[in-house]
Amino acid sequence: MDTAARSPRTSSPLEPSRRTTVGRGRNRVVGERAALMDFLAHGLIAHVGVVVDTQPVVLPVAYAVDADGPDRDGTLYLHGSVAARWLRATPETTLCVTVTELDGLVAARSGFHHSMNYRSAVVIGSARLVEDTAERGRALDLIIDQMIPGRAATLRPHTRKELAATMVIALPLHEASMKARSGGPVDEPEDLDSGAWGGHLPVTRVIGAPVTAADQAAGVAVPADVVARVTG
Amino acid sequence: MDTAARSPRTSSPLEPSRRTTVGRGRNRVVGERAALMDFLAHGLIAHVGVVVDTQPVVLPVAYAVDADGPDRDGTLYLHGSVAARWLRATPETTLCVTVTELDGLVAARSGFHHSMNYRSAVVIGSARLVEDTAERGRALDLIIDQMIPGRAATLRPHTRKELAATMVIALPLHEASMKARSGGPVDEPEDLDSGAWGGHLPVTRVIGAPVTAADQAAGVAVPADVVARVTG
Repeated sequence: MDTAARSPRTSSPLEPSRRTTVGRGRNRVVGERAALMDFLAHGLIAHVGVVVDTQPVVLPVAYAVDADGPDRDGTLYLHGSVAARWLRATPETTLCVTVTELDGLVAARSGFHHSMNYRSAVVIGSARLVEDTAERGRALDLIIDQMIPGRAATLRPHTRKELAATMVIALPLHEASMKARSGGPVDEPEDLDSGAWGGHLPVTRVIGAPVTAADQAAGVAVPADVVARVTG
Repeated sequence: MDTAARSPRTSSPLEPSRRTTVGRGRNRVVGERAALMDFLAHGLIAHVGVVVDTQPVVLPVAYAVDADGPDRDGTLYLHGSVAARWLRATPETTLCVTVTELDGLVAARSGFHHSMNYRSAVVIGSARLVEDTAERGRALDLIIDQMIPGRAATLRPHTRKELAATMVIALPLHEASMKARSGGPVDEPEDLDSGAWGGHLPVTRVIGAPVTAADQAAGVAVPADVVARVTG
């Protein structure tokens, strides 16, 4: 893939709308689209919000992003069973998709200044039901590769039945914002000599050694893409 | 705290309403209130969904739970600045609070059966603005202790100004559901001898060694509650 050709898109600044404009903590806003795309490319779980019968519903879902997707500024894909109630509510309705990584616990000298280090992206947009079978298959492959990069290409093709049983929703990445906090506590000057300790505890997500399925056929080694996913 | 006295409450089965009844994956429903409370007691981040101008907004927040809180089946607390836009929308409106822990990546022999291992709780209810100063202070202490158990008691009291600048929202834990998936892939029988590898990769969250603040006064050791929080 020619990343140079993509750079005008991925390096364009974020243009938050009123819906995604960060109200609080403007000093924590990350304004570069490249940073957003990089962050979203490495997440594993999104929390999708949808309004069902005037009430909010928030569910954890797998997702993937495609910087070259057909929607404005690229595409975020979600999938689910055609029987999933929240998905049935979404075609052409507004979705909010939030991806968060917790990076640390911040212990200040006062309770008030306790905080967390994190990165978080919020994408809001109109859901598009992916009707094209080729795009649906590609989106599903991207969702698999988001979990284990390179794995989709090692699997048998999706069957027609599987594609029919899966609903894929696309969201433009255009309307998005990102926030991040890092580092130690920011305390009131008068608390610094109180005798209290201040600092932070880094939080990381660790992907452990693969556990082969109990019903694994003999003679199949753990593939390289799975081995490469292990971080600790 | 007398946990025996609390057991009738915490061991009561969950009574999901239509809003929290799990639509898909009923085999993944965790029906015990004790399991819900235990899970929520150990989480660090919640994703709160609120409807703003008919559209969903999902934001990551710190939270805490109080099994003995004044609301039905206990209380979930959220907090934020009085200036936070999403909080201003919430008093007496419906909130959906979702807490998710990712426990693993599940690699099946087909793309279709790829999945994730996780635990996730969804709480839906009417937001109650906590007006009582004592309850607000207690809620903030619980939110600090959710992050670092025992820390609130080691800190100076909240000032009147700090309490005035902080908004606390309470949600009853009554209307809640929990889902969990664990273990390896569940594949189609015809895929088992395809030569593909199946299994899962455990995912854990690791809290690392404390990093003392650059402006730390001399002679203050890292306190025991902070040290006890480290998991790896």
